[in-house]
Amino acid sequence: MITVIKPGATEPQIQNLITWFEARGLKTNISEGEEQTIIGLIGDVTKVDIDLVEGLEIVDSVKRISDPYKRANRKFHPNDTVVDIGGHKIGGGEFQIIAGPCSVESSEQILSVAESVQKSGAALLRGGAFKPRTSPYDFQGMKADGIELLLEAKAKTGMPIVTEIMNGLHLPMFEHVDVIQVGARNMQNFELLKELGKVRGKAILLKRGLANTLQELLMSAEYIMSEGNENVILCERGIRTFETATRNTLDLSAVSVLKELSHLPVVVDPSHATGKRNLVEPMAMAAAACGADGLMIEVHNNPAEALCDGAQSLTPEQFDRLTKKVAKIRKAII
Amino acid sequence: MITVIKPGATEPQIQNLITWFEARGLKTNISEGEEQTIIGLIGDVTKVDIDLVEGLEIVDSVKRISDPYKRANRKFHPNDTVVDIGGHKIGGGEFQIIAGPCSVESSEQILSVAESVQKSGAALLRGGAFKPRTSPYDFQGMKADGIELLLEAKAKTGMPIVTEIMNGLHLPMFEHVDVIQVGARNMQNFELLKELGKVRGKAILLKRGLANTLQELLMSAEYIMSEGNENVILCERGIRTFETATRNTLDLSAVSVLKELSHLPVVVDPSHATGKRNLVEPMAMAAAACGADGLMIEVHNNPAEALCDGAQSLTPEQFDRLTKKVAKIRKAII
Amino acid sequence: MITVIKPGATEPQIQNLITWFEARGLKTNISEGEEQTIIGLIGDVTKVDIDLVEGLEIVDSVKRISDPYKRANRKFHPNDTVVDIGGHKIGGGEFQIIAGPCSVESSEQILSVAESVQKSGAALLRGGAFKPRTSPYDFQGMKADGIELLLEAKAKTGMPIVTEIMNGLHLPMFEHVDVIQVGARNMQNFELLKELGKVRGKAILLKRGLANTLQELLMSAEYIMSEGNENVILCERGIRTFETATRNTLDLSAVSVLKELSHLPVVVDPSHATGKRNLVEPMAMAAAACGADGLMIEVHNNPAEALCDGAQSLTPEQFDRLTKKVAKIRKAII
Amino acid sequence: MITVIKPGATEPQIQNLITWFEARGLKTNISEGEEQTIIGLIGDVTKVDIDLVEGLEIVDSVKRISDPYKRANRKFHPNDTVVDIGGHKIGGGEFQIIAGPCSVESSEQILSVAESVQKSGAALLRGGAFKPRTSPYDFQGMKADGIELLLEAKAKTGMPIVTEIMNGLHLPMFEHVDVIQVGARNMQNFELLKELGKVRGKAILLKRGLANTLQELLMSAEYIMSEGNENVILCERGIRTFETATRNTLDLSAVSVLKELSHLPVVVDPSHATGKRNLVEPMAMAAAACGADGLMIEVHNNPAEALCDGAQSLTPEQFDRLTKKVAKIRKAII
Repeated sequence: MITVIKPGATEPQIQNLITWFEARGLKTNISEGEEQTIIGLIGDVTKVDIDLVEGLEIVDSVKRISDPYKRANRKFHPNDTVVDIGGHKIGGGEFQIIAGPCSVESSEQILSVAESVQKSGAALLRGGAFKPRTSPYDFQGMKADGIELLLEAKAKTGMPIVTEIMNGLHLPMFEHVDVIQVGARNMQNFELLKELGKVRGKAILLKRGLANTLQELLMSAEYIMSEGNENVILCERGIRTFETATRNTLDLSAVSVLKELSHLPVVVDPSHATGKRNLVEPMAMAAAACGADGLMIEVHNNPAEALCDGAQSLTPEQFDRLTKKVAKIRKAII
Repeated sequence: MITVIKPGATEPQIQNLITWFEARGLKTNISEGEEQTIIGLIGDVTKVDIDLVEGLEIVDSVKRISDPYKRANRKFHPNDTVVDIGGHKIGGGEFQIIAGPCSVESSEQILSVAESVQKSGAALLRGGAFKPRTSPYDFQGMKADGIELLLEAKAKTGMPIVTEIMNGLHLPMFEHVDVIQVGARNMQNFELLKELGKVRGKAILLKRGLANTLQELLMSAEYIMSEGNENVILCERGIRTFETATRNTLDLSAVSVLKELSHLPVVVDPSHATGKRNLVEPMAMAAAACGADGLMIEVHNNPAEALCDGAQSLTPEQFDRLTKKVAKIRKAII
Repeated sequence: MITVIKPGATEPQIQNLITWFEARGLKTNISEGEEQTIIGLIGDVTKVDIDLVEGLEIVDSVKRISDPYKRANRKFHPNDTVVDIGGHKIGGGEFQIIAGPCSVESSEQILSVAESVQKSGAALLRGGAFKPRTSPYDFQGMKADGIELLLEAKAKTGMPIVTEIMNGLHLPMFEHVDVIQVGARNMQNFELLKELGKVRGKAILLKRGLANTLQELLMSAEYIMSEGNENVILCERGIRTFETATRNTLDLSAVSVLKELSHLPVVVDPSHATGKRNLVEPMAMAAAACGADGLMIEVHNNPAEALCDGAQSLTPEQFDRLTKKVAKIRKAII
Repeated sequence: MITVIKPGATEPQIQNLITWFEARGLKTNISEGEEQTIIGLIGDVTKVDIDLVEGLEIVDSVKRISDPYKRANRKFHPNDTVVDIGGHKIGGGEFQIIAGPCSVESSEQILSVAESVQKSGAALLRGGAFKPRTSPYDFQGMKADGIELLLEAKAKTGMPIVTEIMNGLHLPMFEHVDVIQVGARNMQNFELLKELGKVRGKAILLKRGLANTLQELLMSAEYIMSEGNENVILCERGIRTFETATRNTLDLSAVSVLKELSHLPVVVDPSHATGKRNLVEPMAMAAAACGADGLMIEVHNNPAEALCDGAQSLTPEQFDRLTKKVAKIRKAII
């Protein structure tokens, strides 16, 4: 950590600050420039509150040099984490596709989608039971009943299931859920993250927030991991920018950056990122090409009732085509 | 609501969609252009799922013309809402300053700050007991003890108190809190919003999320109001942009836009928005000048222990100067 | 185009507006809702000034339904444009790699890079002669001498050359340049675009601005095309967002969106987009996988003097590996 | 400047880099931490190319501590610059309002607007002759004729005039123009900036680009100043963000930040920033309250032909009301 001192600071003030740093077990290195004095801090600076130091009268700015996360950090854990979900592995070269409808709507719907995506090669089944919606007047999901229907589909197909949680109080309903998803809007719901950190034997799929940096995503993973649950899967799902041609801007560089900074697996959700059906296939292929460990794709199986088809859901036929193309890309990059 | 049909759609497909809209109680108006057909929808469209319609094969795009919020909407409630907090009114021309430290640290600290900010003219006392922090290793607040200390200060000064909630389970601890704050990171924690909507006799101070539009802020207010608690105070606290000179970019146009769209009071938090002490006073003055109903200012009272001073906290002297300048602005605009 | 009328507008005011629209050769369609009246406009609305209509007292908002660009629009030109640069085709299934150093530095440097990238499969040579730099004190390029060195390298290798223009007055120096590049900062330098539109027999590589939408990019292409030069190649090179882990955020969805809206070829520049050498290869692979028509890659050939190596430049060896991987991806997607 | 070395770097590699720095006249200070070695650089680092150093294999990151601009920097020029435009001073406590129509349309129009805004207290007259428009099919301004009409209005009213330049070749037409405006889209048109730097006896009003940081704005001012023209007025006019309720997001913190970093005057353009007539007055008041040195306001004088009224233009009556309110704010802050 580097502390830049303001031009007018007096010697006793600087000495006072150095003493304070040293009392916290840090070694200091002073560099006196013509315009500015800089104090370098050596030792464990993760516990120094950067805002607090920056607020001091004599301090111009503070720059952290090392990363504020430890458990999610590849520096301290060089090998890829491989998350095993009912025998399906994600990470460390293992690639999986998670597919299913945005919302669970009925027993027929979820089972029909499950069977068709499984046939096309999806390993995990996703489906929303609790739905975060911007408007209180929009459909909020089937809730407990939705989870029951997912478990039914799991029983019939053997596919592990992935579904979103919005409230720690609902955890008992997630007993037989394999992967608990944290949605983008809850990425910094730290109370929820801490509760999920106490869960054992389940993976957490943590989606990047709409306006969160990759470092913040890793800090949120750290919240879960610091409570003991290290089975975290990161998910890039688009960020909010000025561009309106797509719902969000899919940030594929995030895949490479996250895999460099962290050992955790990274999956990509091109459906929510783009919000447009015809962009899902090309973005899925791009994600596979740049090294993502998996994909999360919205599929809806309803040829008869065309009106229940979300803007970004693929039909089973479109999904089948996507899986074949992604498989070719996977083969090309190995 | 306007539905733009794709060029190739057939007459029966369009007729089918019209029938579907009419089954939902909506009247339709068809406009056939050379390139495109447009279906206008008349009636209560708040319950039409825009994503669902946009996902139809024959639909090019959907544009909402009327607002998706009702209770927060000035159109249906033309008069300003005035929120009364222990006799201190906010909204409808009434202006209040909320001041206090970022975190409650000790009995002496909170009482000393309370007394000094009250002397300078602050009506409400703020202080964080539960602190949302990006890192799990940073100080997370004094929690229940912090609320106790706030209540002590309230007892001694008579100032109503404002403090942040992060988990619905903590509500019992907030029994004697006057204003419950929802932080920026929880603006779309819909489960928490619904619980706060059930609270009676307390105002909710709802902060805008880092990357949330003003319409989304109003939809979050609608979540609270639709459960019956209409005492909502909106708070602009800066948004995330590419600019790094300030922590966030304070969006003061939000004050005017929100007051045009909604009847709810709007306060501004220049401390968190800028993250820099020397910007707090000018931004507070600007907020008062453009018609904000109140300000929320971080003040820390610690002349002896200079190290506990956050980057954006004012000293009591700086705060006193700010209140005098703001009072002059308030006088100039009436 | 849709014009939404404000609730209080009188019948004569609305009639007055309709008459005005009709005087401009537009047919109108009136839809009277409970809350709002909407006027649909049918006919050629490209010449209606949307800002002007939006400014009328009785108008609430105006929404354009059809696209404001014609020559760049796929609707009016369904087949892919294929740009031929000295026999190397870009677009319509033809893929090319443009490679070379950020700046031309010396005869040896540019020739050495040209020969090595040609050997690895690059068809076009890039190199900066005029360099746009944020600071007036940074190196501004070799200017005319730089172009001379590029032409020398072209003469020796036969590779067509691509280089950036910053001022229309410099056009005579670009006489033998094959592709003139417009940098991100000049994407809306409309005076320059119009001059380039008058150029014949040269392609224009138009880079997306840091904060420009895809529609604005197409409008800038339209500036060039409306003056008669239809050989425009679009280039996605990252946009400015809140994320700081990469220099810009590469928006790969842009490739698919642009190819859907327009018939023009689209190339991707992963070097400038990410600003980091180790992200260039994965992003190049992703771009190829999602259907880009070409890549633009920074390569620097200087094993001896390591200090002249930009943060994102590849060595010839790294570039060679990239071309092999991209070739595999190209094969997988055909 | 701080250079952070990667963990694996060898002693000879580090020594090699130090030698290279010292050859450039810089003193170095080495700080060896447990995880990282940091090299501090002391001396004139403005000429060190940060990208070049960051690209070195052994370098992890580079952080600039001091500012890369000199002439625009308050550190080297502590007193406010006061720009005198025909006897009207801007900066150093002097405040001026610049007003007029978006585009010059006719002799009657510009003269009528000039007379009315002058009566209300505007000191300078603005009007667009060359108009940057996103679409090549939109009205591009009256060009040379527009400047003639502005000069006519100047002759009759005595008001100095402000108008935008888009091409250095047009400079001869600007001979009698008092303030040359550089629009947001040309803020990084460095060729134009350099030409304006050679102009003598005229002020340059430099608008912030849509997605440019305040540091980049100061670097663009530096381009002009480094060529000898130090009469630069900075203008905040809104930045591009995700929010769509306003055309841009007005960043009023920019006023305080710019005045702290630089001695140049700062004016605010609330008309273009918000794009909405009813937001112009409150944002003008806020700008005055936080210390702006001036305002730039769009006014259109056309009671008969309501259709020529841009979305954000004020009527002369609205402008008159604004000037009275701004005067009250100015009085309150002195």
